[in-house]
Amino acid sequence: MANSYRIGIDIGGTGIKAGVIDTENQIVGRASRPTGADRSWQAVVQDIIGAAQDALQNANLTQEACVSLGAGCPGTIDAKTGTVVYSNNLHWKQVPLAKGLTSAFQMPVHVSNDANCAALGEVCAGAAKGFQNAILFTLGTGVGSGIILDGKIFEGGGPGGAEFGHTLLVENGEPCTCGRHGCLESYASATALIRDAKRAVQKHPESLLAALCEGDLSRMDGRIPFQAARKGDSTGKQVVDAYIRHLANGIVDAVNIFRPEMVLISGGISKEGTFLTNPLNELVKKDVFGGEDSFLPQIRAAQLGNDAGMIGAANLT
Amino acid sequence: MANSYRIGIDIGGTGIKAGVIDTENQIVGRASRPTGADRSWQAVVQDIIGAAQDALQNANLTQEACVSLGAGCPGTIDAKTGTVVYSNNLHWKQVPLAKGLTSAFQMPVHVSNDANCAALGEVCAGAAKGFQNAILFTLGTGVGSGIILDGKIFEGGGPGGAEFGHTLLVENGEPCTCGRHGCLESYASATALIRDAKRAVQKHPESLLAALCEGDLSRMDGRIPFQAARKGDSTGKQVVDAYIRHLANGIVDAVNIFRPEMVLISGGISKEGTFLTNPLNELVKKDVFGGEDSFLPQIRAAQLGNDAGMIGAANLT
Repeated sequence: MANSYRIGIDIGGTGIKAGVIDTENQIVGRASRPTGADRSWQAVVQDIIGAAQDALQNANLTQEACVSLGAGCPGTIDAKTGTVVYSNNLHWKQVPLAKGLTSAFQMPVHVSNDANCAALGEVCAGAAKGFQNAILFTLGTGVGSGIILDGKIFEGGGPGGAEFGHTLLVENGEPCTCGRHGCLESYASATALIRDAKRAVQKHPESLLAALCEGDLSRMDGRIPFQAARKGDSTGKQVVDAYIRHLANGIVDAVNIFRPEMVLISGGISKEGTFLTNPLNELVKKDVFGGEDSFLPQIRAAQLGNDAGMIGAANLT
Repeated sequence: MANSYRIGIDIGGTGIKAGVIDTENQIVGRASRPTGADRSWQAVVQDIIGAAQDALQNANLTQEACVSLGAGCPGTIDAKTGTVVYSNNLHWKQVPLAKGLTSAFQMPVHVSNDANCAALGEVCAGAAKGFQNAILFTLGTGVGSGIILDGKIFEGGGPGGAEFGHTLLVENGEPCTCGRHGCLESYASATALIRDAKRAVQKHPESLLAALCEGDLSRMDGRIPFQAARKGDSTGKQVVDAYIRHLANGIVDAVNIFRPEMVLISGGISKEGTFLTNPLNELVKKDVFGGEDSFLPQIRAAQLGNDAGMIGAANLT
């Protein structure tokens, strides 16, 4: 079918990934390039264009076969103008990304935040397929959130909204990258889990949690606390239980505001599967406004992994 | 002008207020009745209908002159079906309010949460007139929130959303009416201010704060701490500063999600004016994601007082 493909681009701090998808959200060609974020934004945009052209070539297609191009980008995006207002990862301020891409592609170009794109990808083709209202939390270095309402990305009123990772969990709590203290990100990111696991090792050097990182705190990662907990280590279990409690509290806040049908967890920690999502479902059911009688979401692991952002970007409208 | 008026009804736990407004949002007739929430919902609905008919009569109009009727109601509302899913104040569960009103009025009938209606009223005719994106916090017994995005009420995905008062400020903090501990409501309601002021009096019986309630804690209200603070009493100032800090934290959370152009404060405490809103504006500017360079709202007192809900209800579409 001519003129029915879409191009999706996921711009990260280290790599640019581009893909061409068909009407079934199948990736028919892909390509990647290093971001090289230390260069001028113009140089980076040239490589974004190059990656998209490579993906088209790998799909044996020309841009005439495509109806639109979308790009997901970390940071604060003004989706209405396609401008990257501010991106810490890319060192960008007020970069007219959509305009730059329009110079090379004769089709509608859309730009949104990368977590928004990942959420849209999961709704179009992943764990929330068929649902109109879903929230995705990406748990990594930080906590990203993407919110889909009525099938569309929720952007808020002005640029810089939908930053659910930067809502408070603990007034005057742990320092957050945003400058506040006690945001969800400072308790529910993989970074926070690792921080808390290290603290627990220092308190409990006799624990399995300590043994699993062989006494070397620098080896601690987001998987080790779950390994220890699964094996019944009480220190590991305490760390994981507290982590899940924090995350559940953030999800309850999101449910009380957005009442989605589905809450998805992505990032490495989501690989813990039902060991993570079962207690989350229980805690959230108990704590949401109105309790079990209210409109409750399912909490699931995301499915599309690293392709979610690209597929979502391709579905931007 | 025939056929251009609208009916707005504000259903409260103690009283029903109905008004007829013209195209300029001026109230041309009003009426009220006691709610009598201890009766059957059918009996209450008859009085809602009666109040609306009284308001029409007081405006010298018949329902043929009206294009729509809207009702705001406390609790969890399913705006799509016009059903009151649950209202604690009215003791209602699954009440088909829109259907009940449609039996008496031959015009489109809309139902929404009362705080949503108050926010819409302020956007249509009050402190946020001319703005498309605004959030209203009503600070009273609890903390209600109404969110307007693109000129329309934000309802969330399913019923029971937009409950910003029930998002966490302090994990495991003060008990909240919703069953959780540490919600914004349990720190930023008038009830919370009074609780904290009473505690401060017990610690500082020598303070002006204590003197202003004449040693009788039951006389404490939401105005006395502000009176004491304005007069330089250090105990009163501490109570008010902490209260404003909590409220600012809740507003920052809301801004990081919704990025409105305007945040409005209503309820008795909003009468403190710039003594309240000036520090709120300063604190919020400092703490929002992206800081002063980001898309910042103005924080102001609401203007319409008790008419906001009625005017907003009349503007439901």
